[in-house]
Amino acid sequence: MKISNGASLKSAIEINPEKTSQLLENFIREYVRKLEREGVVLGLSGGIDSAVAASLCQKAVGQDKVLALIMPEKDSDPRQKEDALSLAEQLKIKTRIINLSPYLKKFGIYGLLPFYRLPLTRGLKGSLTRKLYDLYTKKTGQNPFLASQIGFKNGKLKLYLKNANAYYRIKHRLRSLLLYFYSELENRLVVGTTNKTEYKIGFFVKWGCDSVSDIMPLQNFYKTQIRELARYLKIPNSILEKPPSPDIIPGITDEKAIGVSYDILDLILAGLEKNWEISEIAKACNLSKEKVLYVKKLTENSEHMRKIFVFNHD
Amino acid sequence: MKISNGASLKSAIEINPEKTSQLLENFIREYVRKLEREGVVLGLSGGIDSAVAASLCQKAVGQDKVLALIMPEKDSDPRQKEDALSLAEQLKIKTRIINLSPYLKKFGIYGLLPFYRLPLTRGLKGSLTRKLYDLYTKKTGQNPFLASQIGFKNGKLKLYLKNANAYYRIKHRLRSLLLYFYSELENRLVVGTTNKTEYKIGFFVKWGCDSVSDIMPLQNFYKTQIRELARYLKIPNSILEKPPSPDIIPGITDEKAIGVSYDILDLILAGLEKNWEISEIAKACNLSKEKVLYVKKLTENSEHMRKIFVFNHD
Repeated sequence: MKISNGASLKSAIEINPEKTSQLLENFIREYVRKLEREGVVLGLSGGIDSAVAASLCQKAVGQDKVLALIMPEKDSDPRQKEDALSLAEQLKIKTRIINLSPYLKKFGIYGLLPFYRLPLTRGLKGSLTRKLYDLYTKKTGQNPFLASQIGFKNGKLKLYLKNANAYYRIKHRLRSLLLYFYSELENRLVVGTTNKTEYKIGFFVKWGCDSVSDIMPLQNFYKTQIRELARYLKIPNSILEKPPSPDIIPGITDEKAIGVSYDILDLILAGLEKNWEISEIAKACNLSKEKVLYVKKLTENSEHMRKIFVFNHD
Repeated sequence: MKISNGASLKSAIEINPEKTSQLLENFIREYVRKLEREGVVLGLSGGIDSAVAASLCQKAVGQDKVLALIMPEKDSDPRQKEDALSLAEQLKIKTRIINLSPYLKKFGIYGLLPFYRLPLTRGLKGSLTRKLYDLYTKKTGQNPFLASQIGFKNGKLKLYLKNANAYYRIKHRLRSLLLYFYSELENRLVVGTTNKTEYKIGFFVKWGCDSVSDIMPLQNFYKTQIRELARYLKIPNSILEKPPSPDIIPGITDEKAIGVSYDILDLILAGLEKNWEISEIAKACNLSKEKVLYVKKLTENSEHMRKIFVFNHD
């Protein structure tokens, strides 16, 4: 008999952090060897995923063989850089800080959303952005995240969304370009930091630093599982406890963008993975069916972000 | 009874260019619709693959909906840009020329191989590069292409190769960044131009413009099949007949880098695809077994360029 309740979904995503951490260390070490690299490089954002990845890398290949790139730009939260730096100090790994703003300026992105150039505080920019986000959702019946997943042939308020996409996505693509630049200069393996939750719902930048890498240790772990690992790995509380954010547009945290908390998201995704009916998942998580269908739609719409469609002549 | 000869391998890769062209047009049109885009964008290099892709796009969605980015830099052959422009004119598609040199200079790449900054002619730079290529091959027993496919833990002349990789690969990654930037600004589908031959042997830049895209119409066609398509599509002779080149390091054509011609490569790959024995393929193509084994090694070493290794906890 299938027990359709939240507790059974929760237990489905439980992990043993100690054993998992060891397996992940082995995994990283194995590919450094197989791909004949002299170390690893990864982007350190100040968030929990890259903190966990950095800690695992340090255990896997030793502190001297890990390079962390910290790549802030104009819109970045200064606290993120501080958290990244203090974690790197704790782990005793090498860092290189690269300010992306001069590059992004050269690409002309800061002219795309002139609003952010006004002499306002970060806090005010953030709160205005959140208001615009809500306004778009109210006006169109879908939030900008869902609205911008595929394309805009029939989209509403197209121009705004197009510019916003071009504005923020190039940042993560520039980050992957720089990760590979240093990977090649120093013969390092690029370690990705994507987690399963964001991967499944398409909450990443296609071909950005949260999409491409040589290996992905965390891509099969939900965000709540990453938190378990982080606690085990003694990631500082300042990183563990702050609200996750892509730190790519002022004021937009993960939960604000997606509209669902990770605790709920992970249960829904676990239910979908088990092929439960929508109504079963809704009941087990004490949610509306609409919420579950929304998450399912995110997973479907984002298919093109996880694969390239190749013509096959057979 | 299996007939192991060159003729049977040749016939295995024959295509009907008219029918194929129609299927490819449908394929492109289908994904523009499915992903709700208002047109397509692709990089036009002046070479045969992107010429064929551009022509198919024009037929698929109409000349007004195709944007071709032409992205030369300091080391590019000026003839490539001319060929790209005259093809775009013939197809009546929009173009945008973006000079990559200022960006690449900002990344500091031109300091990596100071040799190319000397006031020498393109021709002289090319012929010196080819000599260095041969010298490396002679000294180490493998050509730089094979030597740089995985990593350099135990590699010879490491520093030179590391710098060379960082020097040329960033160019194609910058191109994909720009393709996606325009894709987002104008809601266009990014059409990739990779062919099967270069895909299978890893003759592309991992996450570069010949690796990432939204759709890949040509990735299942060998270079010799692309030539068939090109003739059918009336691609100008100046493009059809020049030696293929990544145009990324002076003097290095595809054949110089790989060490085998496409006519031979395609037959070897077709034989490997049919699971023929190495000795059978060698015999059928009138080649040494070593040559066939070399191509097989390229396909194996480049596995990491076609997939991300993901940890699986099952």
